[in-house]
Amino acid sequence: MGLADYFPIWDRLTDAERRTLENSVTKRTVPEGTLLHNGSNDCVGLFIICSGQLRAFILSDEGKEVTLYRLFERDICLMSASCMMASIQFDIAIEAEKDSELLMIPKDVYKNLMDSSAIVAGYTNELMASRFSEVMWLVEQIMWKSFDKRLAEFLLAESALEQSETLKITHEKIANHMGTAREVVTRMLRYFQSEGMVGLARGEIRLTNRAALESLAR
Amino acid sequence: MGLADYFPIWDRLTDAERRTLENSVTKRTVPEGTLLHNGSNDCVGLFIICSGQLRAFILSDEGKEVTLYRLFERDICLMSASCMMASIQFDIAIEAEKDSELLMIPKDVYKNLMDSSAIVAGYTNELMASRFSEVMWLVEQIMWKSFDKRLAEFLLAESALEQSETLKITHEKIANHMGTAREVVTRMLRYFQSEGMVGLARGEIRLTNRAALESLAR
Repeated sequence: MGLADYFPIWDRLTDAERRTLENSVTKRTVPEGTLLHNGSNDCVGLFIICSGQLRAFILSDEGKEVTLYRLFERDICLMSASCMMASIQFDIAIEAEKDSELLMIPKDVYKNLMDSSAIVAGYTNELMASRFSEVMWLVEQIMWKSFDKRLAEFLLAESALEQSETLKITHEKIANHMGTAREVVTRMLRYFQSEGMVGLARGEIRLTNRAALESLAR
Repeated sequence: MGLADYFPIWDRLTDAERRTLENSVTKRTVPEGTLLHNGSNDCVGLFIICSGQLRAFILSDEGKEVTLYRLFERDICLMSASCMMASIQFDIAIEAEKDSELLMIPKDVYKNLMDSSAIVAGYTNELMASRFSEVMWLVEQIMWKSFDKRLAEFLLAESALEQSETLKITHEKIANHMGTAREVVTRMLRYFQSEGMVGLARGEIRLTNRAALESLAR
């Protein structure tokens, strides 16, 4: 688990740049639930995900959450170093959604590289464009898909992610992901159950008619 | 009207880079309503706005629109050259919302500069971060603000933009801006009228109680 394996532009860096990165990178192992970044309060650096899963979300004044995107093995979390860029004018929170092994590049080190290397700056551009694209996808979902379609899509995505037909997730947690109230989720899940698409048990949702969910999500 | 006046990082470019830009930049004068960019179909280059106003929006399959952000004098439109970056995976449309004078930097010229200059690449990063921030603001609006607050805020923003208490805009157009149906806008405007906050006439909305709108928007 080293930068040479996980940092995509490693081969395009100079020896001096590689040494700078190698001398400053640190490993972090964090348990599920760890809050790694919270708005503009902290800004430690970039995280490279060696294993595990991170979730980026926003939080309203009333404590409501919306999941913006998730990051998986080999993804790079740029927004945990968002203070590097003056024009990022929003607060984002990042948490470990599973136990995760991370490589952390301190923000000052990365910022220096970005300021001197067109390759690093260009790569950073692509990273930001990827996250921007995920948020744009979310905007389209919110504006143009009704809630039943969004929920069906969410259940299918979770099932693919967990590689299981049984999701161990509370209605509360789904509501947080989707930026809605728990009651709204519960009502729709009960409708799905009445249509035979899911089976509900305490803390568990079983996908019982995947084809119907897929046709709804489409 | 030249690059030296309108391109913010002009002073930080080399002589060779300035010559490259000066030899490729073109002036365009476009009337209100001109569609300058439409998804991935065209990708001409960056527009620098010398005068006028551009609007960036997305379009659903059914023809519904949502305004993402607007660009004003001295702003730079990066998304009309979105094909420069492989990771931009969404389609955006850009139209002139007023008669506009633009400087256009062809995308290949800009891409070459960005690939060789950390300064240009870093500046591009800041441009993208600005637009990303505007979209994040929109996400927060949609998720957490009820429609009455959003509409009040929209009317106040339009009034500030036009420097007038009387807005010449149709309900249809407002609906397009906000990604909702005309009926929803009309219903809410009638409620605002009944509360004495606005006066409605054909093709016109007069702000009659700005304080009430402001307190609603807050």
